[in-house]
Amino acid sequence: MSTILKATPRERLLRAAADLFYREGITATGVERLCRAAGVSKRSMYQLFETKDELVAESLALFGADVLADYLPGEAAGLTPRERIVHVFERLEALAGDPAFRGCPFVGTATELKDPAHPAALVARARKQELTDFFARQAALGGADDPETLASQLTIVFDGLAARAVVRGSGVGGLAVTTASVLLDAGGLRAG
Amino acid sequence: MSTILKATPRERLLRAAADLFYREGITATGVERLCRAAGVSKRSMYQLFETKDELVAESLALFGADVLADYLPGEAAGLTPRERIVHVFERLEALAGDPAFRGCPFVGTATELKDPAHPAALVARARKQELTDFFARQAALGGADDPETLASQLTIVFDGLAARAVVRGSGVGGLAVTTASVLLDAGGLRAG
Repeated sequence: MSTILKATPRERLLRAAADLFYREGITATGVERLCRAAGVSKRSMYQLFETKDELVAESLALFGADVLADYLPGEAAGLTPRERIVHVFERLEALAGDPAFRGCPFVGTATELKDPAHPAALVARARKQELTDFFARQAALGGADDPETLASQLTIVFDGLAARAVVRGSGVGGLAVTTASVLLDAGGLRAG
Repeated sequence: MSTILKATPRERLLRAAADLFYREGITATGVERLCRAAGVSKRSMYQLFETKDELVAESLALFGADVLADYLPGEAAGLTPRERIVHVFERLEALAGDPAFRGCPFVGTATELKDPAHPAALVARARKQELTDFFARQAALGGADDPETLASQLTIVFDGLAARAVVRGSGVGGLAVTTASVLLDAGGLRAG
């Protein structure tokens, strides 16, 4: 029996939502299309989620953890704090080169929804903060002069690179690690 | 007679489109809503624009020029090349603090449409390139070591700052000029 058949209707809806919202857009994905992709009736969907907004927020919260994990280095990798930060930008360089890359899903969700108080915009903000917190921890460990500011600047560069890939449709052109490195050098982060 | 009454149906449609697409989203703005806002019948709209996609692209091209002009310093301002670049980030700091700020309309359009070959995505790419070209010209005049790379990095920081404002819904927290300045210093741009 395949994994998809064992997944519950709720899981199938969350997975189809995360996939379609990222690939085609949140507003562009109607409830009918979503239910068809998940193999769930509209009636069942509305028994599981009161509104589409609730589904948008919950799917982003659930799959957002996977998105973040895809960029972070493993604990066992034996890297220095600076190398751990650089790893995130190496991953972005690789992932943004995929023709299916549509930018950061958290920024994309906030951008499309327009409303900073939307439940999914709150999820986006919290998830994005997790990346900044990761940068801040590594920056502090690596002896940065001002870990919090450096972490915010690295997040800005990360999001700007993702925007570049979306606008140009052709990756980030080798600029990820080089641009982050300018900030790491200026911020006093040790190589070792 | 007010300006709005003198505007042609075509102008009213382009203006309403630029406004609603930015404030509420492209997909979220149906043709009916758009025509109501512009005071134009659907029949007239389809006589002027074959498809909504055409209207999306044309409104972005037309009002995109105003958007860019809002960030650039005037020719007569008597600023050094470095000051002219810094001016853009001072403007972003100010504009992103407005609760109505919804990010860069070019990045936002490309993000929502998902399709790098959409006619409006092509407009977004060209308009964004104009900002990068402005940075490159100033960087060359200011003696930067590698004006093209510095210009791309400044565009990345610009878009990352705008993304930060969208995700957090609270401006860019004084990070615009300081982050750009790190890159300007590292890129060898003279102060004078």
